[in-house]
Amino acid sequence: MPDGNTLHPLVVFTPSGKRGRFPVGTPVLQAARALGVDLDSVCGGRGICSRCQITPAFGDFPKHGLTATDSALSEWNRVEARYKEKRGLREGRRLGCQAQVTGDIVIDVPAESQVHKQVVRKDADDRVIELDPSTKLFYVEVREPDMHDPSSDLERLIGALSEQWMLDDLVADLRIVQRLQPILREGKWCVTVAIHFGRNAARGRIVSLWPGYYEGTIYGAAFDIGSTTVACHLSDLRTGRTVASSGLMNPQIRFGEDLMSRVSYSMMNPEGAGQMTDAVREAINALLGQVAAQAMVPVEDILECTFVGNPIMHHLLLGIDPVELGGAPFALSAGEGMVFWAAEIGVTATHPDARVYTLPCIAGHVGADAAAVILAEEPYNAEEITLIVDVGTNAEIVLGNRDRLLACSSPTGPAFEGAQISCGQRAAPGAIERIRIDPETKEPRFKVIGCELWSDDPGFAKATAETGITGIAGSGIIEAIAEMRLADVIDIDGVVRGSLTTETDRIYAEGRTFSYLIHDGAQRIAVTQNDVRAIQLAKAALYAGCQLLMDEMGIEAVDRITLAGAFGAHISPLHAMVLGMIPDCAVENVRSAGNAAGTGARIALLNAGKRSEIERVVRDVEKIETALAPRFQDHFVGAMAVPHKSAPYPRLRTIARLPDTPPSPPPGSGEGGTGRRRRRARA
Amino acid sequence: MPDGNTLHPLVVFTPSGKRGRFPVGTPVLQAARALGVDLDSVCGGRGICSRCQITPAFGDFPKHGLTATDSALSEWNRVEARYKEKRGLREGRRLGCQAQVTGDIVIDVPAESQVHKQVVRKDADDRVIELDPSTKLFYVEVREPDMHDPSSDLERLIGALSEQWMLDDLVADLRIVQRLQPILREGKWCVTVAIHFGRNAARGRIVSLWPGYYEGTIYGAAFDIGSTTVACHLSDLRTGRTVASSGLMNPQIRFGEDLMSRVSYSMMNPEGAGQMTDAVREAINALLGQVAAQAMVPVEDILECTFVGNPIMHHLLLGIDPVELGGAPFALSAGEGMVFWAAEIGVTATHPDARVYTLPCIAGHVGADAAAVILAEEPYNAEEITLIVDVGTNAEIVLGNRDRLLACSSPTGPAFEGAQISCGQRAAPGAIERIRIDPETKEPRFKVIGCELWSDDPGFAKATAETGITGIAGSGIIEAIAEMRLADVIDIDGVVRGSLTTETDRIYAEGRTFSYLIHDGAQRIAVTQNDVRAIQLAKAALYAGCQLLMDEMGIEAVDRITLAGAFGAHISPLHAMVLGMIPDCAVENVRSAGNAAGTGARIALLNAGKRSEIERVVRDVEKIETALAPRFQDHFVGAMAVPHKSAPYPRLRTIARLPDTPPSPPPGSGEGGTGRRRRRARA
Repeated sequence: MPDGNTLHPLVVFTPSGKRGRFPVGTPVLQAARALGVDLDSVCGGRGICSRCQITPAFGDFPKHGLTATDSALSEWNRVEARYKEKRGLREGRRLGCQAQVTGDIVIDVPAESQVHKQVVRKDADDRVIELDPSTKLFYVEVREPDMHDPSSDLERLIGALSEQWMLDDLVADLRIVQRLQPILREGKWCVTVAIHFGRNAARGRIVSLWPGYYEGTIYGAAFDIGSTTVACHLSDLRTGRTVASSGLMNPQIRFGEDLMSRVSYSMMNPEGAGQMTDAVREAINALLGQVAAQAMVPVEDILECTFVGNPIMHHLLLGIDPVELGGAPFALSAGEGMVFWAAEIGVTATHPDARVYTLPCIAGHVGADAAAVILAEEPYNAEEITLIVDVGTNAEIVLGNRDRLLACSSPTGPAFEGAQISCGQRAAPGAIERIRIDPETKEPRFKVIGCELWSDDPGFAKATAETGITGIAGSGIIEAIAEMRLADVIDIDGVVRGSLTTETDRIYAEGRTFSYLIHDGAQRIAVTQNDVRAIQLAKAALYAGCQLLMDEMGIEAVDRITLAGAFGAHISPLHAMVLGMIPDCAVENVRSAGNAAGTGARIALLNAGKRSEIERVVRDVEKIETALAPRFQDHFVGAMAVPHKSAPYPRLRTIARLPDTPPSPPPGSGEGGTGRRRRRARA
Repeated sequence: MPDGNTLHPLVVFTPSGKRGRFPVGTPVLQAARALGVDLDSVCGGRGICSRCQITPAFGDFPKHGLTATDSALSEWNRVEARYKEKRGLREGRRLGCQAQVTGDIVIDVPAESQVHKQVVRKDADDRVIELDPSTKLFYVEVREPDMHDPSSDLERLIGALSEQWMLDDLVADLRIVQRLQPILREGKWCVTVAIHFGRNAARGRIVSLWPGYYEGTIYGAAFDIGSTTVACHLSDLRTGRTVASSGLMNPQIRFGEDLMSRVSYSMMNPEGAGQMTDAVREAINALLGQVAAQAMVPVEDILECTFVGNPIMHHLLLGIDPVELGGAPFALSAGEGMVFWAAEIGVTATHPDARVYTLPCIAGHVGADAAAVILAEEPYNAEEITLIVDVGTNAEIVLGNRDRLLACSSPTGPAFEGAQISCGQRAAPGAIERIRIDPETKEPRFKVIGCELWSDDPGFAKATAETGITGIAGSGIIEAIAEMRLADVIDIDGVVRGSLTTETDRIYAEGRTFSYLIHDGAQRIAVTQNDVRAIQLAKAALYAGCQLLMDEMGIEAVDRITLAGAFGAHISPLHAMVLGMIPDCAVENVRSAGNAAGTGARIALLNAGKRSEIERVVRDVEKIETALAPRFQDHFVGAMAVPHKSAPYPRLRTIARLPDTPPSPPPGSGEGGTGRRRRRARA
């Protein structure tokens, strides 16, 4: 291995910069392993898998203190020539297991030859995931049975994996034992095995095998089980690439629109929880079928699934009656990260021995979805203090940084989801999602889902003829009420100003209160006084939850705000601030994380180490129970107002008119983080 | 804990003799634990389970150097009084968790209060098994959930098991997570859990739970899967008592009478192995139903099963096609001791999360049944050299002692099982099992299965009228041929003496050879020359196998011979020696081990440590392949003769007439082991 003999050639690997001297004739793969350079190999250096491709560089390298001549590597050998002829090898590439060191040389390991490839997330921030999944493939050559030394085929396979891959203490699934003999013989004693490495470095288990060198790949599916939507991403576990995505309505909706009605259903019906469990598992199997079909692979190639969801979705998926989550003290049955056979939880459209991993739940109200958001956003690695808000029937709120992480959930109720709003509806084509109100005329302009035009653009009527204008989506109701405040249609207490009926027909009396008319078509779409009250209650709860965590942390402002969840992705941060949903923050530091929970599920799928990481982080999260905090009620009452251009929103004072397209911040409005105003309550 | 303070009372436990000084007021259970005294407790010292009962002794104990007065233990307390009132407590007994040390005292721990109870085997040798099963019960009190400290019910249960029972790193089956919440609440936060401790000290898994203190018990079933019979013993895992036993014909018989015909069936029929797997699993489930019904317990209380069987039975049980075991090199798919869910191998008439353990196979011809025999007989713990012979289609032969253990199998063919014998039949009512031939008159007397009388006893005809006399069982054919030799009906080469036709009608010509008539009734039962030849071949193979191992071991005689298996149980050792089936040995050292394989399965069920023990022993057994040993053929040819009163059976020379009832040895014939004639080939 690397030695200090200065007569031996010097080998420098890039990009790692690792270097060592090796005797002439040392294969490059061997040198890389000796130095701990991240160079892949599935076949163990037999010139079969081509995963150890390297690019030698020749010439002068003053930085590395060497000159590499053309003869610094051995000549092409037969194996490489045959490989290039049969499967092709890019110009300049060599097989690391075949090319031998013969002189001083600089060797580049291209990204795709690294074991721990970096998978670039498609999100705005281009964060990377290091590929290191729980289930990996290994090619191995097994000794033939011999009457002089009777040992089982499994014993020799496990021995070969120990000798050739340094994998010890392996066990095998029953199905492996059942299929091993014909497959070993078909592969002429060569076999590729898939090994699943359990949680917390539990012993590896052989979960699948193929005769000879397996040219194909294996897949994993990451699921985000929302109360409304179930989303699935299928990833290639060898490359980390997402090869297919799909989503379905959560069929549990037929048992109750929101979470609490599903818990009620379970309480009222002895078979209720079981029905809901069956329903979501059916959707999962259907989605697995869909993504496999999209990617044109058999479902049997799917060897892993990861799941995130709020506590109630988590429990129903696992077949746990969520009744205890319906009332204090909101005890989870089990919340830790868990590994099961997919078949155990009725997930069958996979390899028969596929494994599933459920991310940990944080508390009875703060689920594995919040854990996944934390994993995706990594506030625990940052210096700045981030506030993460995931809005649903309960808002899940996380606050903190590398030193301390707090979490709570706040009972916002379903208003943000369109329930309890007279014209509220789920986000679907025809639903109003954006709205602006002219402060002078009080006339609205709006956009509906499924159409790029504003309502005052030419052709809008024609473009929306098919879907119609059917209601107001959650993001629309937030903008509507914020704009009503900006246009002084409502006052600071949220009262619709009846006095304006003399100025505009948009405001009209309904009983003893007043409403604001947005659209008068096939359906009359208006915001009533009750709607404003419902949103005030919801936003006050959300704001009070945020404030409670900030009190606990001893800070008066946060550095960054991240709006997570499908709903968060559509909220205009500025309107959310006008409304007083979220604390004050430099507007350019408020961002939507898109489906961060889904991203977290994908991270846990692609990197086993991240599973232990999030389990550790979740254990350390401080859970704050809003119901037990006396200050919560005070904050709640104090947050009912709709402040508009006044405290606590100093940054909004300068904004005369909000732009049409959130969330891009108004130019020049930023002045950096608010960290300098932070103070810590505890030393 | 125990301290050297001589002012503190001295506590001596019997029968262990462990002693220590403890402060006044120390509960006896606590003192026992501190000293490592084996005193049971399921409820953790709460006065619920009554498993820690002890018997204090009062008076002078000069041997222990103390005098115990009546006040050496605390007065009866309320818990004990209530316990005695409600459930009764034997006179003189106290609850170890309640009674406190107040003076010098001798405390006896009765057998039933020991954790590691000794389970006395019912066999002749009264060997004991220490009770220490893989699945054990623990009573625990769990903290209630608290909104101030949100943790899952499972987290608190596992925490309680760690605090109250020092059990760390536990995990739970999915079904536990599903049932945990209602059961914890039903038991008012007290619960009894069953924990399965996996192979090689793998982390414990919670596999079942009951609200409160579970008054009942849990069961385990030990299976011996023979090619002819499947036998099952149901044991109480808390007491080790066998509560029910049952056996069934192995329904695989319809696919082939012997092992090789079942392998052939599998080779000829694509679904053959699957059919045979289904058949044996059906029998197993039926047996579980039978033993549960016998013991009047629900099958759901059965939490563990252990299985032994020859390699082909083992593979078919696990759903492995046994085709590779049908020809050289006879490679097992997997032979190690393995743990599965019972449901994985189609064993469903149990608790839904019951676990199964299969004992290790030794080689492709020497199965888990042989391993179980070794576990039951423990030759690896003995100084004397034991030869264990388990006769079937293949004889499995084990030879050795604590220093070295050898095993081989020898292809005896099915003659001993009654196949290839003209009047042979399976051991069943009506089959001849014992026979004696008068050396003068050549007249036979015999006994049939199902009747206690000999054929020359008055009333025999009437007693056997119903069953008839239908054929010769395996044990009968061995006696018949041995007796034919003793009566000089056959010569040393096994030829039926045609010259005797002039003296007796019992001998008659059939073609060019002669037969011996045993019975002339509804069926004519005779031993033909071909029958003699078949048995000669079989016994020569068996003898040659034994001799091969003795060569390998470098010895000329063995100290003990154990005949194992259902067949072995019925063989007369003396006749087996006359016939030359087994090597010479002092006749009093030849014994039948009965169903030693079934005993081994029961040991592995009742003691988890024995699983590791037999796995370790099996790894170290030297496997000898008869087919590869040139000397095997020589021994085989040399063993064809039927020696009678001559070498190599010196001990038989003194026996004029064999007794009617084997295997009790003739009085005074013993002269101790033959160890002095042993020599070791290897130093």
